[in-house]
Amino acid sequence: MTEISRSKCFLVKTLFSLVVCIMCTVSASAQQKQFSLDELLGGGESFWRLRPENMYTTWWGNMALRSTPEGVYDVHTGKEILTVEHINKCFTEKVVFSGHNFSFPMGEEPVVMFTKGLRRVMFDFHADSVILDVTLPQNAVMRDFNVKTKQTAYTVGGNLYVCTPNGEAIAVSQDGSVDGSDNIVYGQSVHRDEFGIHGGTFWSPNGKLLAYYRMDQSMVPSYPQVNIKSQGAVAGESRIASTYSCHYPMAGEKSHHVTVGVFNTETKQNVWLNLEGEKDDYHTNISWTPDGQSIYVFELNRDQNHMRLVQYNVASGEKIRTVLEEKHEKYVEPMHGLTFLPWDNSKAVMQSQRDGYNHLYILDLKTCEIKQLTKGKWVVQQFVGFNTVARRLVFRSNESDPRQSCLYSVGVKGGKRIAIGKEEGVCNGAQLSANGVMVIQSYTAPEVPRSVNLLYTATGKGKNLLTAADPWKEQGYSIPTFKSGSIKAADGVTDLYYRMVLPADFDEAKQYPTVVYVYGGPHAHLVEASWHWSSRGWETYMAQKGYITFILDSRGSEWRGLEFEQATFRQLGTVECQDQRKGVDYLMSLPYVDKDRIGVHGWSFGGFMTTNLMLTYPEVFKVGVAGGPVIDWNYYEVMYGERYMDTPEQNPDGYKNSNLRLRAGNLKGRLQLIIGYNDPVCVPQHTLSFIRACIDAGTQCDYFLYPGGEHNMYGKDAVHLHERITRYFEDYLK
Amino acid sequence: MTEISRSKCFLVKTLFSLVVCIMCTVSASAQQKQFSLDELLGGGESFWRLRPENMYTTWWGNMALRSTPEGVYDVHTGKEILTVEHINKCFTEKVVFSGHNFSFPMGEEPVVMFTKGLRRVMFDFHADSVILDVTLPQNAVMRDFNVKTKQTAYTVGGNLYVCTPNGEAIAVSQDGSVDGSDNIVYGQSVHRDEFGIHGGTFWSPNGKLLAYYRMDQSMVPSYPQVNIKSQGAVAGESRIASTYSCHYPMAGEKSHHVTVGVFNTETKQNVWLNLEGEKDDYHTNISWTPDGQSIYVFELNRDQNHMRLVQYNVASGEKIRTVLEEKHEKYVEPMHGLTFLPWDNSKAVMQSQRDGYNHLYILDLKTCEIKQLTKGKWVVQQFVGFNTVARRLVFRSNESDPRQSCLYSVGVKGGKRIAIGKEEGVCNGAQLSANGVMVIQSYTAPEVPRSVNLLYTATGKGKNLLTAADPWKEQGYSIPTFKSGSIKAADGVTDLYYRMVLPADFDEAKQYPTVVYVYGGPHAHLVEASWHWSSRGWETYMAQKGYITFILDSRGSEWRGLEFEQATFRQLGTVECQDQRKGVDYLMSLPYVDKDRIGVHGWSFGGFMTTNLMLTYPEVFKVGVAGGPVIDWNYYEVMYGERYMDTPEQNPDGYKNSNLRLRAGNLKGRLQLIIGYNDPVCVPQHTLSFIRACIDAGTQCDYFLYPGGEHNMYGKDAVHLHERITRYFEDYLK
Repeated sequence: MTEISRSKCFLVKTLFSLVVCIMCTVSASAQQKQFSLDELLGGGESFWRLRPENMYTTWWGNMALRSTPEGVYDVHTGKEILTVEHINKCFTEKVVFSGHNFSFPMGEEPVVMFTKGLRRVMFDFHADSVILDVTLPQNAVMRDFNVKTKQTAYTVGGNLYVCTPNGEAIAVSQDGSVDGSDNIVYGQSVHRDEFGIHGGTFWSPNGKLLAYYRMDQSMVPSYPQVNIKSQGAVAGESRIASTYSCHYPMAGEKSHHVTVGVFNTETKQNVWLNLEGEKDDYHTNISWTPDGQSIYVFELNRDQNHMRLVQYNVASGEKIRTVLEEKHEKYVEPMHGLTFLPWDNSKAVMQSQRDGYNHLYILDLKTCEIKQLTKGKWVVQQFVGFNTVARRLVFRSNESDPRQSCLYSVGVKGGKRIAIGKEEGVCNGAQLSANGVMVIQSYTAPEVPRSVNLLYTATGKGKNLLTAADPWKEQGYSIPTFKSGSIKAADGVTDLYYRMVLPADFDEAKQYPTVVYVYGGPHAHLVEASWHWSSRGWETYMAQKGYITFILDSRGSEWRGLEFEQATFRQLGTVECQDQRKGVDYLMSLPYVDKDRIGVHGWSFGGFMTTNLMLTYPEVFKVGVAGGPVIDWNYYEVMYGERYMDTPEQNPDGYKNSNLRLRAGNLKGRLQLIIGYNDPVCVPQHTLSFIRACIDAGTQCDYFLYPGGEHNMYGKDAVHLHERITRYFEDYLK
Repeated sequence: MTEISRSKCFLVKTLFSLVVCIMCTVSASAQQKQFSLDELLGGGESFWRLRPENMYTTWWGNMALRSTPEGVYDVHTGKEILTVEHINKCFTEKVVFSGHNFSFPMGEEPVVMFTKGLRRVMFDFHADSVILDVTLPQNAVMRDFNVKTKQTAYTVGGNLYVCTPNGEAIAVSQDGSVDGSDNIVYGQSVHRDEFGIHGGTFWSPNGKLLAYYRMDQSMVPSYPQVNIKSQGAVAGESRIASTYSCHYPMAGEKSHHVTVGVFNTETKQNVWLNLEGEKDDYHTNISWTPDGQSIYVFELNRDQNHMRLVQYNVASGEKIRTVLEEKHEKYVEPMHGLTFLPWDNSKAVMQSQRDGYNHLYILDLKTCEIKQLTKGKWVVQQFVGFNTVARRLVFRSNESDPRQSCLYSVGVKGGKRIAIGKEEGVCNGAQLSANGVMVIQSYTAPEVPRSVNLLYTATGKGKNLLTAADPWKEQGYSIPTFKSGSIKAADGVTDLYYRMVLPADFDEAKQYPTVVYVYGGPHAHLVEASWHWSSRGWETYMAQKGYITFILDSRGSEWRGLEFEQATFRQLGTVECQDQRKGVDYLMSLPYVDKDRIGVHGWSFGGFMTTNLMLTYPEVFKVGVAGGPVIDWNYYEVMYGERYMDTPEQNPDGYKNSNLRLRAGNLKGRLQLIIGYNDPVCVPQHTLSFIRACIDAGTQCDYFLYPGGEHNMYGKDAVHLHERITRYFEDYLK
């Protein structure tokens, strides 16, 4: 359990923070009530009022519980298990936890844990005794609790500490940066959160050993991020703007060096893994063996085309063996560690794209052989866990349709998969019971706002706990029409899926201005079979203003297999633009799309695509809004950038062809670039250099920035941003 | 003679770099040819084609010469004095100087000097002998040549050097910053170019001693100016953006410490003036006595309300005496040093606003008494020099009309002033002969593009050398109508002057959108009686597009006396906005002004005014473009800011009332803020913090910036900028 309290961001994830997963039924009904942006966007204050009803659940061992702010209750009987009121009576200092924060971390034992900020409490609710009540130091971040020893790893500045159950702090590291430079950091996420990395500490199964990352980034220059403050001087301090540290390794330049230490909380000794390879290799997906004697690391060379799964002895730090290697002429991308079979420590589940699609494998650690469990032209999207009774694996895949994501189980020896619940729509939540016999599944489909079900993982059957009504219909809003379909990619062969949102009062005899919303980068998709085809709130807002929006997942996007994704290798933007152009061909074939009023909008990779489309097809796209765009992959980071583009030295043509600065003179329509002024992902240098290029080329682009904003805007800023985007289309595409 | 090769900028001067002094006759004639922005703006490549014919002149002793790229010629006879061709023959290494660069620095001696970049050449053109041919080191800046000893002072990094006539470098200082931090700098301009300071070295009359500034700004934080580069990596260097040093003392915060040294080029010894007062006092207008034994410094306390004229012995560095003091409850602002009478070393000319208007005084250095030479409700704008024969002072003043600037002479004992040439229009150039008996006057008036005259300074009579034709008329352009007049200020009493530009095909029966162009800050005026009433090229461009432009010099602007200027003291923006509002009242009284289409535009202080007007009168101003604005005087510099506003601690209400951030919620119309991304004068923090305030208040402003641009845009950037400004009004005020 790792809490990430430091802001982490990377190109892909950030997309989803913008994609507000608003959903509703598919029929268009012209009603009276109009949406405000505040209601439609996650950042809006009234947003939650229009969300489908939800049910919050948790497991106490194998007992499914419904949680409310007041307490937790048996889902079957409604019987009260534990209330906040009861807990408050047992603490002299009143507790302000909510039932939603309760977890039962010790299986069927009557122990509840609740966390609030820096405080962690464990409570035996049969004996009414406090097992743990500890509060971490005020500046503790990256907090990682271990239930066995009840110790918490945390960082302060660049150093790593362990907090004992009685609140004592043990220093794991001493030489981390304390001057704000972040040159040496311990216990934090490394490799800029790529390769599935989200934290920097890894407790051994018995909680006595703590593996952790150490990152030396002193050789990586810092991007000069400027803090403008705004409230005038603090006493004694200058009110002038200042910079803060933001190490940013640009493609082809020096990268940071990561090592792995193991701290023994009993002896207070550190052991360093004697890592092989180059200093700027990637050390990913750290996995402990169940016996706590060794660690597996998925290691990758900087070129990202050769992965080694290496086992290390944690007592000596020495390498034991290389279990497995995987090579690919383009790239290998390990995203998941090993998960050992609960009933057989000699075998582990792993995921690999080695056959072209992400699938589940059983790795035999005695023989170093792997056995493929799932297979087909579809991908495993998530490995959820085990049914330890039936010895089955539970996972999500899009076997049924590339836009769907359903829950399945499969026997450990492979064979027939069983769909858990309906084999349609999208499973957007799966909580397994302790033994995995049952799962609480949260489910949505284009016409299903939300459904929560309690299901048997071996049979796929069970019962419905909640079917939410459509809150938009219930509250009498005028709802647009949400559609999905497919077209052929620019290669003439590949199926691409789109969604389309039509105004509520849509009239096929009219002609509508149309905005293409685009992302297009790897590790993301926009069209899925969830409520309203996963349409974003802004699309409904635009529909209400009389615009059609069109969203197409082009080649390069996720969950379609390696060939589909790697079509863009070393030429990011090229194939994606050709595919989006095909989307426009389709739009232009529709009588109700106004061919002279086509706009485009996207953020991050979608900002790169928006700018690219405006410059590549200036005769097609009249208005564009590009948020947080990449302009030149030379300015993007080593990890993501080199995976898809190699280095500028290895691929000069690819970098040149995708450098939008060099095409600034092509700009004809209205293009607004918008960034977070403190974007640490697509640093401001991208747009600033593009603006310089436009000025030099004598073209006019527009610009806006959110001071203090990073790669995406949240809360009120997000509402302001979408007002801004809307206004731009209203001004120029109207 | 000081060359400033480092970019220097301050709020006032920058205005004029934008005000492209385009001029033309006052009649409107609807003709065919249309202007391009490129032709109308100083940054345009075809700009010079539409400038009035000019005559370049210089003096050789008392002989007036006309200079051409080929050489120099007697203005009376046309006789060839010296040609570039002749000079080229005398140098083995071909010289590429132009006749325009020739000067005759040794009175009537046949010695010509020419300067090109780092090379300085002196040549006896009767003896055909080279007197000097020296080239400074490549990184030499702040170059200051002395004709007596033929030495050149220059700086490299933070250190000061003297280059001997044979090219040897003597180090004056050793401890200046060499790390780019600029913490300690020698020989450079100080106090951010306020108080008339433009350089940091001051040669003694005989050229053997060099006085110079030393500035310690280690206690002043540096604004994080970001260099984004744009061309990709230099070999071995990161291509990431970086910051560079830009010390910026904000009002009320720590200011730099300036001291004055004197270097003896013969003994190589330095003497430091033992300056009185506080370390952050201002040491301005350094003047040598003719005997080279002492130096006068106009010293000012940080509060800028107490000036002392102090004499120092340069041999010992000790203070000799305080000659004069001047106090004012608001501020005293010394802008000019002493100029000793050539025929009487015991007396010097000085300027002072002590009677409420800037006038000339004779200071008797024996008695420390001053005698007022000019007097009246008008101001001396420039002291030009002496007629040493008639013992008269030559100067420019606006005695005839606040918008005019004419040349006069007055006897050293005061008395009747004689107008030199016509007492109307604007004298925009005055070169005196060696003895000052004659002056070459360049002259312009609303209907006079340019006139160059050779005049006697004692009688005011003389002859015309050139009367330029109107190049706009000659080339058949469609010319707008330029008008000027006056209205009453918001106080109901004070006269304010405006100019107005009407489209060439103006029709009083129509209604026109109107843009108010505004500056409004001290030390500047916009309306003067030069060609086209000093209208800027952009106004003609807007007239061509069907807009009226209106320009009003409100209270606070220059050349109207101290009371007029100080009406804004401690409340910058308040009175100025009230006066501009009066201007709009006048506009609204005109039947041909469309009351619903009034816009506003200004730069620097004018950007502050534009933003202020948009927020103060949102019902009046529909569209605004604010360039390089001050938003919060808390973010402006110590020298200028504290003069007009005192410190934030002394004047909290004044700072609060003028803080536009606090009124961001008032924004209703369309407002675009534009800055140079590297503006060292109004640092980006102003606009960035305003944008943040708009976002927080839920209002929408627009934004643009010029990466690499400073406080003003030049060349192609200026053309791009004005296309941008025009487009904004076309989009939203049309």
